Amino acid sequence: MRGVLVLQSDFGIADGAVSAMYGVAFSVSREINIYDLTHEIPQYNIWEASYRLIQTVNYWPEGIVFVSVVDPGVGSTRRSIGVKMTGGQYVITPDNGTLTHLKRQNRILEAREIDETVNRLPNSGESYTFHGRDIYAYTGARLASGIISFEEIGPLVEVRDVVELHTEEAVYRGDSVTGTIDVLDVRFGSLWTNISRELFKKLGIEHGGRTEICIQNDTREVYRNIMKYAKSFADVYIGEPLIYINSLDNMAVAINQGSFSKAYNISTGNNWKITIRKAPRIIYD
Amino acid sequence: MRGVLVLQSDFGIADGAVSAMYGVAFSVSREINIYDLTHEIPQYNIWEASYRLIQTVNYWPEGIVFVSVVDPGVGSTRRSIGVKMTGGQYVITPDNGTLTHLKRQNRILEAREIDETVNRLPNSGESYTFHGRDIYAYTGARLASGIISFEEIGPLVEVRDVVELHTEEAVYRGDSVTGTIDVLDVRFGSLWTNISRELFKKLGIEHGGRTEICIQNDTREVYRNIMKYAKSFADVYIGEPLIYINSLDNMAVAINQGSFSKAYNISTGNNWKITIRKAPRIIYD
Amino acid sequence: MRGVLVLQSDFGIADGAVSAMYGVAFSVSREINIYDLTHEIPQYNIWEASYRLIQTVNYWPEGIVFVSVVDPGVGSTRRSIGVKMTGGQYVITPDNGTLTHLKRQNRILEAREIDETVNRLPNSGESYTFHGRDIYAYTGARLASGIISFEEIGPLVEVRDVVELHTEEAVYRGDSVTGTIDVLDVRFGSLWTNISRELFKKLGIEHGGRTEICIQNDTREVYRNIMKYAKSFADVYIGEPLIYINSLDNMAVAINQGSFSKAYNISTGNNWKITIRKAPRIIYD
Repeated sequence: MRGVLVLQSDFGIADGAVSAMYGVAFSVSREINIYDLTHEIPQYNIWEASYRLIQTVNYWPEGIVFVSVVDPGVGSTRRSIGVKMTGGQYVITPDNGTLTHLKRQNRILEAREIDETVNRLPNSGESYTFHGRDIYAYTGARLASGIISFEEIGPLVEVRDVVELHTEEAVYRGDSVTGTIDVLDVRFGSLWTNISRELFKKLGIEHGGRTEICIQNDTREVYRNIMKYAKSFADVYIGEPLIYINSLDNMAVAINQGSFSKAYNISTGNNWKITIRKAPRIIYD
Repeated sequence: MRGVLVLQSDFGIADGAVSAMYGVAFSVSREINIYDLTHEIPQYNIWEASYRLIQTVNYWPEGIVFVSVVDPGVGSTRRSIGVKMTGGQYVITPDNGTLTHLKRQNRILEAREIDETVNRLPNSGESYTFHGRDIYAYTGARLASGIISFEEIGPLVEVRDVVELHTEEAVYRGDSVTGTIDVLDVRFGSLWTNISRELFKKLGIEHGGRTEICIQNDTREVYRNIMKYAKSFADVYIGEPLIYINSLDNMAVAINQGSFSKAYNISTGNNWKITIRKAPRIIYD
Repeated sequence: MRGVLVLQSDFGIADGAVSAMYGVAFSVSREINIYDLTHEIPQYNIWEASYRLIQTVNYWPEGIVFVSVVDPGVGSTRRSIGVKMTGGQYVITPDNGTLTHLKRQNRILEAREIDETVNRLPNSGESYTFHGRDIYAYTGARLASGIISFEEIGPLVEVRDVVELHTEEAVYRGDSVTGTIDVLDVRFGSLWTNISRELFKKLGIEHGGRTEICIQNDTREVYRNIMKYAKSFADVYIGEPLIYINSLDNMAVAINQGSFSKAYNISTGNNWKITIRKAPRIIYD
């Protein structure tokens, strides 16, 4: 069976860094197949790297090896790890928070620290900066193509010790749910929240029903309006906002054929709060 | 034989949407090979999606399956279709005009509506927004890898019923040809017209001959100048405009090592008209 | 063995040009595997194309065929060549300076001019502009998949006749080394110089030692400061500059988690000079 490697980084694709990783992987095994998750993670943005993994890992079959290199601490004492997911996929990455979302959803079955004394491209010289190529792509390709087993990556570490970034939990408060804006659907400017469909359903709003959405940056309110809970974009007019269930089964807010993020200068992170409640009935006497 | 899938969308490659499509296709068949046409189609721009297909389909061999997802009407009643081309390639797409150019060039041999009750990723949940992954990539991969036949996509539909966007025909008027600016060669800013080489040849202009080019936006003239009909960019000076035959055997206008589009703020669409005539001889008495 | 093609160009990936090259290669052999080096080379920038090749070729195994198409002289009398590297890889390209760095490092074993009368996509028509697709991708795919041998590309040419761009050599002057800023690490804004690790080591500076860096644009000094010679970014504070050995074993200058290039408006080319010397000791009396 051909090994398959899926690469993610913040390197961009304008220079030769990604292709060098491809070359190293291909030198390990000419039968390997290599695909990209994305190389457009904003520089050093570990949070987004973590999110893109949770967004995609489950759609790939068991045995696949992801290599994710967003590594602001390259050359520091941060360790490198490999993890095996409950779905049988693997992720090779610096242990810097890149596995936050996968860990929180209990998807990590086993974690091992990469022993870099043996898992490193031979003759990779005095460059201490390009671990993406010399350690991660090299080790990932050897694992994907069966040259080493997962055990040969290095010693076991406790899953609970895998580094996590701080995350907030969405909260249900009877007539409202409040969560954070975790990430953007980049090209379309939709806001993806950490509010799950299950939590939202406690509000008892049916498809086509009206919701009141309030968005706060820290303590400042930046948006408040009423919009439809829509099955899909086609349920509202072009230019109209909507709330819907995104491809991760979480609640998301968008403008049909517009960019919600750009329209209201809304960004992502734990200080961006969103509250959903059933829209009040407005009665004209 | 390994199945081959070629993907096009307006999703961009900065987040996990495209990789999720790859993963679904790969889960269908581990032997499949997946390539991209482009994921940089401007959002919701069905016209450009249609044009990029006509620009590339013919260079791929029979049996290849294209999946094109530019889908502003996702979740509406627009149907999903698969078509077989005269060259033996397939295209899986929402039936929203994405097949305009292929249809007009009589390349569609047979069309079938996708039966989404059977051709949908199992357990793809309550998300109504990600048909690219759950229907198109899934069905395309099953077709490409021979798990289903083209007939099993769903029932036949008449080719004449496949949705088309409005297109204009180039017109020959004795001493001139008038057409529209259909699309840009994005990186180089060249204007690609709908004027074929055959139609242009009626003007009787030889390589190296001089043409007068007039460009109008609706009724406003935005450019008029004389330029050489060149075999290639190297026939003119750097910075000089030229008219030439592009890779689709249509007439195109460019500036050697510059951007014609940026230089004169020229865009694309049916209201952008271009007229070519043989340049008048200028005689100084 | 499956043939492998690695493509580089300045075409971008927003339209169908690259996919047409893929299709042509795939039509040559359905068993071929195709990867990208990059298609984001700045338009017509032969120097950068040359640099990206030296940055990556060596990480790929023998037998791989690179196709590089940055071709401002398409349609001129510039010839097309194929070269075999000392590492057993091949490069197919217009002979316009794209091989400058590979030639200067004595990596070219043998060069042949492509005979375009036989090595051209059949029926590729009257378009004189798309040699990337009709000649380079077609010939590269035929070589990669073993349909033609390297000898069948065309007649031998002298390696010394392969076209070179002007390059400067870094110079050691006892207490300093002076070189040029060759290229950027695009996404991170680091400056990559032509000063090798060996030359730098003559200055006798140890890891952790302090260097004085002076950058000039022609005769104008644009930057002078003292920074640490660091093993990696983690050895300095966030926002602090450093000098380090890059993935090509040359000296590079960066700001940890910032962009040196943007911070000081520094670009690349032979008129951008950088001088490194051991930092003077500053003694307060």
